[in-house]
Formats: sequence, C-alpha cells, structure tokens
Amino acid sequence: MFFDPHVHTEGLGLSELRKMRESGVTHLCSLYFYPIKPLFPQTLIDGFRKLKEFESFRCSLVDLDMIPAVGIHPRCIPPDYKTVLEHLEANEWTAFGEIGLEVASKEEIEVFSGHLMIAMEKDLPCIIHTPGRNKREITMKTLEILSKLNFPPEIALIDHVNFENLDLVADGGYWVGLTVQQGKLTREEAVKIVEEIGEEKCILNSDVGFGENILTTVPETAKMLGKSAKKVCFENAKKFLGV
Amino acid sequence: MFFDPHVHTEGLGLSELRKMRESGVTHLCSLYFYPIKPLFPQTLIDGFRKLKEFESFRCSLVDLDMIPAVGIHPRCIPPDYKTVLEHLEANEWTAFGEIGLEVASKEEIEVFSGHLMIAMEKDLPCIIHTPGRNKREITMKTLEILSKLNFPPEIALIDHVNFENLDLVADGGYWVGLTVQQGKLTREEAVKIVEEIGEEKCILNSDVGFGENILTTVPETAKMLGKSAKKVCFENAKKFLGV
Repeated sequence: MFFDPHVHTEGLGLSELRKMRESGVTHLCSLYFYPIKPLFPQTLIDGFRKLKEFESFRCSLVDLDMIPAVGIHPRCIPPDYKTVLEHLEANEWTAFGEIGLEVASKEEIEVFSGHLMIAMEKDLPCIIHTPGRNKREITMKTLEILSKLNFPPEIALIDHVNFENLDLVADGGYWVGLTVQQGKLTREEAVKIVEEIGEEKCILNSDVGFGENILTTVPETAKMLGKSAKKVCFENAKKFLGV
Repeated sequence: MFFDPHVHTEGLGLSELRKMRESGVTHLCSLYFYPIKPLFPQTLIDGFRKLKEFESFRCSLVDLDMIPAVGIHPRCIPPDYKTVLEHLEANEWTAFGEIGLEVASKEEIEVFSGHLMIAMEKDLPCIIHTPGRNKREITMKTLEILSKLNFPPEIALIDHVNFENLDLVADGGYWVGLTVQQGKLTREEAVKIVEEIGEEKCILNSDVGFGENILTTVPETAKMLGKSAKKVCFENAKKFLGV
C-alpha cells in the first residue's frame, strides 16, 4: 500500500490511473491545476467541484482512494481571484493545493497568504509548491510568509524539495515533499535526502499529471527506501492529510 | 494513417495519446465536453481555449494532428448559456462539437439551434451527438431542426448512428458517424453498416475520453473494412472537417 499525495489526476487517463493502482498505489491526493491561465474565477470554482465529484468518481472506478485538494496554483491566478478565495472560505474542503509561490510577485503573495489564512481557520493541510527557478530564494520567501502568520508546520507540506532548499525546510519542522520526477529528484537523490534528515518528516510523491509521467515512481522508490518506505510512502502522507 | 474524428483528449493521458499514435492514428478531432454540469458559462469559455491551446500542444507532443471542436454538449448546458453562444459567434473556430440533443428539452433545442445558426454563418462542420436512450425519436427531432434551418448536410455529421436510426440519417445525405465503443457499435456492426449504405458517407470514430477506452478502435476496425477503410477511416473525416 502506497500513498501518492501529489498527483494531478485531471491529466491522466483511466488506464494510467489503473496502472498506478496495479503498481501498489492505493491512496492519492489529486491537486487542482488549470494548465492555461484562466480568464475567469468561475472556471476554478467549477473546476474544484469537478475535482471533488468527477475525479473522485473516476479514481473509485479503479479502486483508488482519492483526496481532493483545491486552490489557486501561482501559475494560474485568474483575474478577480478574491471571488475564488471567498468561495474557498465559504465551503468545506479536505486540503489546499497546489498553492504557493512561483516568482513571488505581489499578486502571488496575496493569493498564497489568502489560502493560508483560510487553512488556519479551517485546519486544512496545505501542499505548497516551490518552483524550479530561484528555488532557494522563493522557498525563503515562502517560509517567511508561513512564519509571519504563525502557520502550524504540521499542516504545511513544502513540496519539490531538493538539495537547494532542504536545510531551510527541514529546520522549520515542515513536512518535506520529495518529488521523484524527471527534472526534479532522481530516486537516488530522494533516498539520500531521507537518509540525511530521517524518515519522520519526509513524504514522497510523483507529481504525475498532464505531461510525461513515470506513474510508478512512489512504489519504485519505496523499494530502494527499505524500512523507511512505510512512513515516507504511506504513513506520513496519511498523518499529514488527516485521513 | 487514420483519422479519429470524435475523441475527448481531455480525458486521456499522454501515454494513451501516444498509444493511439503508435496504432496508426495520425489525425484526430478533440471535442469539448465538461464531465459535470457547469455552474458558469465562463467555465466553457476558458475550456474552449484550453482545448485549442493546451490540448493541441499535448497532442503535438506525440505527433498527433489535432483539430479542436468546441460547443455546448446537451448534458453540460450552463446557466446563461447565451453568453457562450455569443462568445462562439464572436470568435474563430474550426468545428463545433459535441453538440446536439440528449432529451430534446426546450433548452437543449435552443442551445443546439443556436450553434447551428452560427455554424451556417461561419461554414463550420458540426459533430452532432445522438443519445443512447430514445435514439430514433431524438434523431428525428434533430433532423427536423436541421431541415427547418436548411442546414447544409455536408457540414453535419450525425454521430453514434446505429441500426435504430441509420435509415433516417442515411436518407438525409448527412455524414454517418459510426462509433465503435462498448455500449455503442461493435466492430462487426460498423462493418455491416458500411456494407449496407456504402463507404461514401460513413465516418468511423472511437469517442474515447474520460471513461473505459479502447484506444485503437479505428485502426482495428479499419483492418476489417478492407478497401473501404481509406475513406471511412481517413478521407471522409478529412473532407468533412475541411482539413
């Protein structure tokens, strides 16, 4: 049994979801992401419902237990995003994601902070993106925002951590998201990080979705993690997401 | 080389699109469909752009030549759908689909007729759904609407034709869409229809998308069609879509 807590099921076909299930993934968290910049906040409001209702249903067809995570990804902030934040505040959710900063513009910071304040009020776990570019600098900005808000680290997963920002994230007591994917971490690097900082806070994920995907990255890396796999590939994600 | 002119690429992952390409499908038409009832017309307006921009890009990654078709499917008519029709009228498109009637409610008829009038004005090919339930009755209603508008049959593909409505569609001079899929036509039935009415107006398709899919249905049925495959699985779709 594996838990892949960072997947964009909307980019995957049913046979791909089945392939994940057959590889041993039993639970996943599907994160909202719109692959072009939306022109309307309504697109996201309908999209969150599509994720909660239709994507959960599609996952259930192949016996995957799916947790939906909603929110505005920094690369798809619509005009009048306050409408989306009001919608998030007014309704019930299980988790927020993918949220965070990409370039740390004023708008991104406002949107990200808006989610965090709602998450604190509702006690919602947040899956927080860190970008490929300027990772260290943007991670520092991200942690600064969390710190200023006194955001509880136990409901914050800082994702796509690598050797550029590992020390920053590990020191703060946050969940450390390790994304094994082309352009992010290799399996070997993920194993090395777990060895370095211990298994208690590490959560492995695939970030599979709209692009080229290695669907079975969590079970494959689990094999290399040995004893640590139980926590890093299942229990920690369950605990973080409160399932 | 095969042309699959009824696909919902938004329900397919990249490895599935690649599998289609490897089976010999070189061209496809991707039709807009939102798998829950949208609450906002804006969702469709953003969705059409996602289909035109992002889905075309995703198809190009696996060397698939994709024609986007947009419009309001009868099962996903949003409130204030006139906003969507105005958007369709004000912009440039290649094809309309998936449009048509599901239960032939007053609202469905208004939405369908709205698309047809814009299509006539812009000379756009239309891929027109016929439902599983009451297929003969709803097809009669569909053809009545087309006929009243003097809609040019050469830009109308009546889709999901089977033995229940074949005579109605064939007699009208419309393109006859043959969907080989579980719950629609078997390969043998599709071949039988082509033998019965000739290859000139038949267009084979898979309707693959969000559900259980046989991705290679067009190439597989082509093998059974012999000499007719050239027209039914490629040339007719090309002619209809004006590519």
